[in-house]
Amino acid sequence: MILPISADLIAEHNHAHAAALDEDYAALGRKLARVGIDIEAVKDRVAGFSVAVPSWGAGRGGTRFAKFPIPGEPTNIHEKLEDCAVINQLSRVTPRVSPHFPWDKVSDYGALREEAASLGLGFDAVNSNTFQDQPGQAHSYSTGSLSSTVAATRQQAVEHNIECIEIGRQLGSTDLTVWVGDGTNFPGQQDFARSLDRYLEAAAQVYAALPDDWRMLLEHKMFEPAFYSTVISDWGSSILAAQELGPKAKCLVDLGHHAPNVNIEQIVARLHRFGKLGGFHFNDSKYGDDDLDSGSINPHQLFLVFNELAEAEANPRDGFRPSYMIDQSHNVTDPIESMLSSAEAIAQCYAKANLVDRAALHAAQEANDTMMAFQALRRAYTLDVSPILAKARVEAGGAYDVLAVYRDSRYRDRKAQERRAVGLGAGIV
Amino acid sequence: MILPISADLIAEHNHAHAAALDEDYAALGRKLARVGIDIEAVKDRVAGFSVAVPSWGAGRGGTRFAKFPIPGEPTNIHEKLEDCAVINQLSRVTPRVSPHFPWDKVSDYGALREEAASLGLGFDAVNSNTFQDQPGQAHSYSTGSLSSTVAATRQQAVEHNIECIEIGRQLGSTDLTVWVGDGTNFPGQQDFARSLDRYLEAAAQVYAALPDDWRMLLEHKMFEPAFYSTVISDWGSSILAAQELGPKAKCLVDLGHHAPNVNIEQIVARLHRFGKLGGFHFNDSKYGDDDLDSGSINPHQLFLVFNELAEAEANPRDGFRPSYMIDQSHNVTDPIESMLSSAEAIAQCYAKANLVDRAALHAAQEANDTMMAFQALRRAYTLDVSPILAKARVEAGGAYDVLAVYRDSRYRDRKAQERRAVGLGAGIV
Amino acid sequence: MILPISADLIAEHNHAHAAALDEDYAALGRKLARVGIDIEAVKDRVAGFSVAVPSWGAGRGGTRFAKFPIPGEPTNIHEKLEDCAVINQLSRVTPRVSPHFPWDKVSDYGALREEAASLGLGFDAVNSNTFQDQPGQAHSYSTGSLSSTVAATRQQAVEHNIECIEIGRQLGSTDLTVWVGDGTNFPGQQDFARSLDRYLEAAAQVYAALPDDWRMLLEHKMFEPAFYSTVISDWGSSILAAQELGPKAKCLVDLGHHAPNVNIEQIVARLHRFGKLGGFHFNDSKYGDDDLDSGSINPHQLFLVFNELAEAEANPRDGFRPSYMIDQSHNVTDPIESMLSSAEAIAQCYAKANLVDRAALHAAQEANDTMMAFQALRRAYTLDVSPILAKARVEAGGAYDVLAVYRDSRYRDRKAQERRAVGLGAGIV
Amino acid sequence: MILPISADLIAEHNHAHAAALDEDYAALGRKLARVGIDIEAVKDRVAGFSVAVPSWGAGRGGTRFAKFPIPGEPTNIHEKLEDCAVINQLSRVTPRVSPHFPWDKVSDYGALREEAASLGLGFDAVNSNTFQDQPGQAHSYSTGSLSSTVAATRQQAVEHNIECIEIGRQLGSTDLTVWVGDGTNFPGQQDFARSLDRYLEAAAQVYAALPDDWRMLLEHKMFEPAFYSTVISDWGSSILAAQELGPKAKCLVDLGHHAPNVNIEQIVARLHRFGKLGGFHFNDSKYGDDDLDSGSINPHQLFLVFNELAEAEANPRDGFRPSYMIDQSHNVTDPIESMLSSAEAIAQCYAKANLVDRAALHAAQEANDTMMAFQALRRAYTLDVSPILAKARVEAGGAYDVLAVYRDSRYRDRKAQERRAVGLGAGIV
Repeated sequence: MILPISADLIAEHNHAHAAALDEDYAALGRKLARVGIDIEAVKDRVAGFSVAVPSWGAGRGGTRFAKFPIPGEPTNIHEKLEDCAVINQLSRVTPRVSPHFPWDKVSDYGALREEAASLGLGFDAVNSNTFQDQPGQAHSYSTGSLSSTVAATRQQAVEHNIECIEIGRQLGSTDLTVWVGDGTNFPGQQDFARSLDRYLEAAAQVYAALPDDWRMLLEHKMFEPAFYSTVISDWGSSILAAQELGPKAKCLVDLGHHAPNVNIEQIVARLHRFGKLGGFHFNDSKYGDDDLDSGSINPHQLFLVFNELAEAEANPRDGFRPSYMIDQSHNVTDPIESMLSSAEAIAQCYAKANLVDRAALHAAQEANDTMMAFQALRRAYTLDVSPILAKARVEAGGAYDVLAVYRDSRYRDRKAQERRAVGLGAGIV
Repeated sequence: MILPISADLIAEHNHAHAAALDEDYAALGRKLARVGIDIEAVKDRVAGFSVAVPSWGAGRGGTRFAKFPIPGEPTNIHEKLEDCAVINQLSRVTPRVSPHFPWDKVSDYGALREEAASLGLGFDAVNSNTFQDQPGQAHSYSTGSLSSTVAATRQQAVEHNIECIEIGRQLGSTDLTVWVGDGTNFPGQQDFARSLDRYLEAAAQVYAALPDDWRMLLEHKMFEPAFYSTVISDWGSSILAAQELGPKAKCLVDLGHHAPNVNIEQIVARLHRFGKLGGFHFNDSKYGDDDLDSGSINPHQLFLVFNELAEAEANPRDGFRPSYMIDQSHNVTDPIESMLSSAEAIAQCYAKANLVDRAALHAAQEANDTMMAFQALRRAYTLDVSPILAKARVEAGGAYDVLAVYRDSRYRDRKAQERRAVGLGAGIV
Repeated sequence: MILPISADLIAEHNHAHAAALDEDYAALGRKLARVGIDIEAVKDRVAGFSVAVPSWGAGRGGTRFAKFPIPGEPTNIHEKLEDCAVINQLSRVTPRVSPHFPWDKVSDYGALREEAASLGLGFDAVNSNTFQDQPGQAHSYSTGSLSSTVAATRQQAVEHNIECIEIGRQLGSTDLTVWVGDGTNFPGQQDFARSLDRYLEAAAQVYAALPDDWRMLLEHKMFEPAFYSTVISDWGSSILAAQELGPKAKCLVDLGHHAPNVNIEQIVARLHRFGKLGGFHFNDSKYGDDDLDSGSINPHQLFLVFNELAEAEANPRDGFRPSYMIDQSHNVTDPIESMLSSAEAIAQCYAKANLVDRAALHAAQEANDTMMAFQALRRAYTLDVSPILAKARVEAGGAYDVLAVYRDSRYRDRKAQERRAVGLGAGIV
Repeated sequence: MILPISADLIAEHNHAHAAALDEDYAALGRKLARVGIDIEAVKDRVAGFSVAVPSWGAGRGGTRFAKFPIPGEPTNIHEKLEDCAVINQLSRVTPRVSPHFPWDKVSDYGALREEAASLGLGFDAVNSNTFQDQPGQAHSYSTGSLSSTVAATRQQAVEHNIECIEIGRQLGSTDLTVWVGDGTNFPGQQDFARSLDRYLEAAAQVYAALPDDWRMLLEHKMFEPAFYSTVISDWGSSILAAQELGPKAKCLVDLGHHAPNVNIEQIVARLHRFGKLGGFHFNDSKYGDDDLDSGSINPHQLFLVFNELAEAEANPRDGFRPSYMIDQSHNVTDPIESMLSSAEAIAQCYAKANLVDRAALHAAQEANDTMMAFQALRRAYTLDVSPILAKARVEAGGAYDVLAVYRDSRYRDRKAQERRAVGLGAGIV
C-alpha cells in the first residue's frame, strides 16, 4: 500500500503534539473515571467506527447558478480514489468509497477494486443515476425514470440499476442506493398514485435482481429537482415502498431531504422501530438540501441522531445494520478538507452518543423526570471528546491535526500541477 | 322540526335574489354546456355533498395568550346544537355535528340525539379528550395519555375512549377520532420507540372495543401542545400505527398539522393509495396549526385536495369513504359566520374538483403534456361556481346569501340576551 | 412590424370563439352591473396593464442536477426576442423584455433596440451578472462580488454594473436590477457587518453612475447560491441598503426569495409604506426559490399581492411606480407556453384586485367587521374574470385562447428546424 | 440579605466536588494556555456576565390546550421573587428580574424594590401587557392595542405603557419592553399600512414619556396570537419603527419569533450594524414560538448569536449595550430547574464566544480561507467550558452543581406546603 501523504510528515506532526494529546487524554480520562466510564473502552469503540465517502464528493460542487472549480480537482475515478485515500490516511475513519455510475465507469472493475485496495480503500454502496441524460442515451429522463409514463424509459432505468448491481458485485459492494429525481413541477402534471404504481413495479424488477446478501436502500427527498411533488418525497413514502418491495429494501435518511423543522432523529427512531432503517447520507443544511458540511450548522441535531443510533444498537429489535456515508456538496472549500472536518464532526457525535449514561436516561424517562432525562443527554453533549478521537486516530496511523498535516503536505498544489483543469460549468438558471 | 331562523326571512331574501341567481346560473350553464358539461348534473352532485361541524367550533376560540369572548356564545351542547342548526339551515351542507367528550357530556344521550334530530342534525365522529385534566380526574395527562409511562394513566385514557365509543353508539356515530397531545418538549424526555410501543398497545385496547361497522380515525399532528416531538406526528407514523391496529383503523388528515411546505394533497393520495384514508379536519393556516377558516389563506390547496378526492372516488382501489369535518378556531369572528363561510369554501372546491375534465387530465399526464395537464386543473379552478352552490342551497331550503340572512336574523343578538356570559380567560379550543 | 405568428391564424381562432366570448362577457357584465361596476371600465384598466418578460426565460431552465433541453430553444438574444414577440403578440400584455448581461451582449445596441421595436417590443430593467465567472474574466466571483474582500473583484463588479447602465441607456431602459449571489456556506466564513459595509460602498459607486431618471432595484434573496447566509437576504437588509444608497434605490420583491410562511403581501405593503417599493419578479414556489410558473401553486397569494398594489395605487403616499417582471425557470414546459399562461395568471390577479369593493373593505376594517372585510376580498377573488382578459386581449389583436393558437402555429417545430441544438448541460451536484 | 437556600448546603456540596473542579479547571487552563489564553481572564469575564429572568417564568406555562400546574408554584410577585432568588443564589448569573404588568401589580413599589434587594435581586426591563383583557378594563384589546382602529383602546394602551414606565422608575428599571399581539387572522381584516400608522402614532406617545436614560425595546414576533399577519412581525418592521420613533427606541430579538430557517445571528449583526440592537429574549424552539429552554434544541445557534455579540462588543460602532433576558414557557419542568439549566447554557455560549480566536477568524475571513474561518469558531464551540463556569459560580457563592443542590434543598416541596394551589386551566404565559 502506498498512501498519498508522507508517513514521516504525519509522524513529525503527531510527535509535536504528543505531549499535549497525552495530557488532554489523561485529564478527560480522569473526568470520565469519576462517573465510572473507562476512556480506553470508549476509545476502542470510536476506533471501530467508520463512515464512507462518496466518490463525487471529491470534486468541487456548485449550484444551478455557477460552479467555481479549484486547481487540482479530480476528474476521474482514479484521481478521486487518490483524494479519498488522503482523507482516510489522515482521519482513519473513512475506509470506504461509494461510487456513482455512470460517472465512475471504467472498463475493468476488478482492477479498480485492486487500485482502491492499494490505497487502503474498499467500496461502499453503489449509486445509480437516472436523473440526468448521458450523451447517446436512448431515452430521456425528462419524464422521470422508474416512474416515467414511458415504458422504455422505465426499462432503461431498471437495466441501469441492475448494471450497477453487477458492477457493485465486482467492486465488493453489498448495497444499492436508489435515488430518483422523479416528480412534478405543476399540480396535475402526473397522477400521484399511478406514478407510485409505476415506480413500485419498476423498483420490484431491480429488487428481483439483488443478490441474497444485498440491500436496496431507498433514498427519499422532499424536493429538487422536482419542485411541486416528488415520488419518494418523505420517510412515509419511503417505508411504504420498502414494505412493498420486501425485506431487503430499506430506507436511507439524508439529513438534508426533509421539510423545515421536522424532527429527523424521531424519523430515525421510527424507521428502526419498523425494521427499515438502512443507512444515512450525512451532511448539514439550513434552508433545504443545502449539502453543507456535516455538523457545521446544527451539530446538536447530528448528536441526537447518533443518540438514536446508540439506542437502536442497544435495542436492536429486528436488527441494526445501518450504512453510513457522507454526502455533501463542497462549493466553497477544498473537498478533502471538508471531508476531513466532517468525518471528525460525525465521529465526535458517535463518541458523545456512546458517552450518554443510558441507564440514567432510561430511569429518568420512566420516572417522567424530564429535566434529568435531558441532562443525561446534555452532559454527554457538553463533553469535549477531541482527545478520544485524536488518540484513536493517531494510534491507527492517522494525524493528530488532520487539516494541518494536509496543508503542510501541499497535496492539492501538487495535484494542481499534475491534473488537467476543470472548466467553468454553470449558469442553467 | 323547528329551525332557529325564520323560514320567511330566508324566503324573502331568496326571492330578492332569485332573478340574479337564475341569470348567473343560466350563463354558467351555457358556458359549461359548450364543453359538454351538464350543469344540472353538477348541481345534483353538489347537493349530495356534506361536511360535519364540530360542537366546540360553535364557541369562540383563543390562544395561550387570551380569548376574547362574544356575547351570546354557547356554553353547553344544547346551545351549540342550536347554533349548528343555524349553520345547516342556511347552508344545507352541514347536517352532522361532531361531539367532544367530556365537553359535551349529558345524562341522556338518547334525548340528545332526538334533540339534534329535531333541529335537522345528526352526529358525526366522536372525539375523545386525553390532552387536558378534568376536575376530579384520577390520573393527570401531564405525562401523556395512551403513551404515558404510567400504566394507570394509559388505562384511564383507554377507558375514556371506550366510553366515547359507547356514547357514540347512542348518538348514532360510527367513527371514533383519536387525537392525543402526547409528546415531549426536550430531547431525551422520552424514548421515541418505547413511547410508540405504549401508544400502540393502548390503542389496540381501544380498537378491540370498536363495533364492527365503526372506524378508528388516527389524527396526527406535527407539534403543539408538545414542542420537541409528538408521538403521532406525521402521516408516516399515522399510517404505520393504523397498519398495526387493523383494517378498521384509518388516518385522518387535519390540514394544519403538517410541516411547512409539505405537499398535503400528495399525502392524501398516498393514504388512499395504501387504503388508509379515513377523513379530514378542514381548516386553513399560514404558520402552524393556526386553525383559520377553511380556504381563507390558500384556497387553491383546498381545491387540489378535493381534486385528489375526486380522483380517488373515480379510482377507489380499496374503497373510498372519507369522513369530512370542519375543525377551526374562531378567535376573531362569530363562529356561525365563519362556519357558513367555510362550508361554502369547501363546497366550492368540491364543485370545482368535479368540473375537472378528468379524461383530458389523464391523457395529458400519459402524454407528458405538462402544460395541458396543469390547464385541465386550472380551467376548473378559474370557474366561478357560486351559482351552482347557491342553486343547490336554495333548492334545499337554504339561503342564497347565508351571511346576509344570518345577520338580518339578529340570531346572535337574541342569544346574547338569553345566554349567560362567558368569562375572560385563556382560550381552550 | 412583422410579428412571428400569422395574424390570419389568430383571427380565425378568435372568430371561432367570438360568440362564446361575447356571451360570457355580457353575462359577467350584468353580474358586475348589479353591484355597480362597469365592466368596460375594468376592461380598460386591464388593457393598460403590462408585465415584462426576461430574455433568459425564453430558454429552458434546469437544476444543479440536470437540464433537459427542447428542440427549437433560442440560443442568443435575437432568437429570444423573437420568442418574446410571440408571447406579446398572443397575450398583448408583455411588451417589454428585460435583458441580462453578459448573456445578451451584442456589438450594436442601437440595432438591437430597433430589432426589438420591429417585433413590437421594448426593453425593461437591465440585469447585471456577478454571480458567475465568464471565460477570460480577470477576477473570480468565487469570493463574492460587490461584497468581496478582494478590492479588484469589487471594482470589476462595480464596472460591470456601470457598463450595464450604459447598455441600458442605449436600449431605452431606466432601471438597473442588482442581484448578487454574495454570501457564505459556513458560520464564520465572513463577517456579517463588514460584508455589508463592502457591499454598500461598492453599490454606492454604481448608484453614483445612475442617470437622473433611473432607479437601482435591489433584489434580496434568502438563500441559494449561498446556503448559510446571504448579504442581501431579506427585505429588512434590502430596505436599509436602499435607504443608505439614496432616493433612486428601491427594493425589488421576488416572490420566491423569502423564508417559509412569510407574509409577502405585508412585505409589499411595508416597502410601499416606507417609500421603497421598486418592483417585482413574479413566479411561484412551494419549497424555496423554485421559480415555478406565476400563480401555479398559490394564486390567492398572488391576488393578495395585487390587492396591496391596488391599495398602494389608490393611496400612493410617496409615489407608486412599481416595475413588473416575470422571472421563472421553465424546466419542464415550453417557455413560451409557460409565459403565456403566467401572464394570464398575473393579469387575472390584477383584474380581481381592481374588482375589490375598496370602500366596503375600508368600512369593514374601520368597524372591525372582520368577516365582511374578508368577504370584500373573497367576493372579488371568486369571480371568473377570464372574459374581461380575453376581451381586452382580442381587442388589442391578441388571441382568445393563447395556448391553442400557439400550438396551432407550430412555431416551436419551425424553430426546431431552424435553430441549432442546445447541448445537455448539467450535473454539478 | 436572607437567601432561600441554606448556605451550608451549598458549601457542603461544593466541598464534595472541590477537588474534581480544581482538577478539571487546571486541565482546561493548561489546554488554553497552549494557545495563549489565560483561563483566569476568561473566568473573570464570565463572572461579569449576567442575564435577567422574567417574573412570569417562575410559574408553570401551558398551551391553548392545557396547563398542568405543579405543587408549590408561585401565585404572586412576592413568591416569584423568592423563586428567582433561588435561581440567582445557586447560579450567580441572574441578579435581575423583569416584571410584567398588570400581573405583578402591588400597592407599594418602593417596598417591592427593597424586598427584591433583600433577596439579592434588582429589576430589569418592565413589560407591558396589552394582549389580554383584564377584569373591569374599559376597552377590549380584541381589536388590537397600539394599532387598534378604536381611538379609546389605543389611548388605554398608551396610558398603560406610560404607567409601566412610572412603575419601572420606582423599581429601578431603565428599559420598557413593548410587545403587542396586534395583527389579523384573515386577509383583508386590517390595512397593513394604516395599522402601522396607528401603531407608530401611539408608540410615539409612549416614547415621549420615556425618561432620558430609558430605552424602549420593540419586540417583534412573526405570529401568534395573530395568525395571518402581525403588525411588528419581523426585524425589518421593528427597525423601521425604531428609526421613526427615535434614538431611544431599539429592537429586541426573541429567538423564537422568526420564520423557519431564518439566520438569526445575521439579524443580530444587522441590528447592531444599524445601531438598533436593544436586547434579547432567550429561549429555544423547534417549530414556532415554542418557548423551550435556552440551548435545549439548537445550542450551536445560541453560540453563533453570542459570537455576533462578542464581535459587536469588540467593534461597537454606534455603541453596544444589549439587555439580556430569559423568556421561556416551562410547561413540563420545574421552572426553577429550567432557568438554572438555561442560565448555564447561555453562560456557556458567552464563554465560548469569548474563546474564539478573533484575530485568526478575521485573518481567515480576509484571506477567504473558509475552512480556517469556520474552524476558528468550531474550535471554541468544541471546548467544554463547564469548569470555567463552575469556578466563577463557586467563587461567587453559587453551587458547583446547581440542580443537585436545588433538589437536595427540597425547596419546592417546602413551598408546596406553604403556597396555595394553582387551579387547572388553559395556560397563560
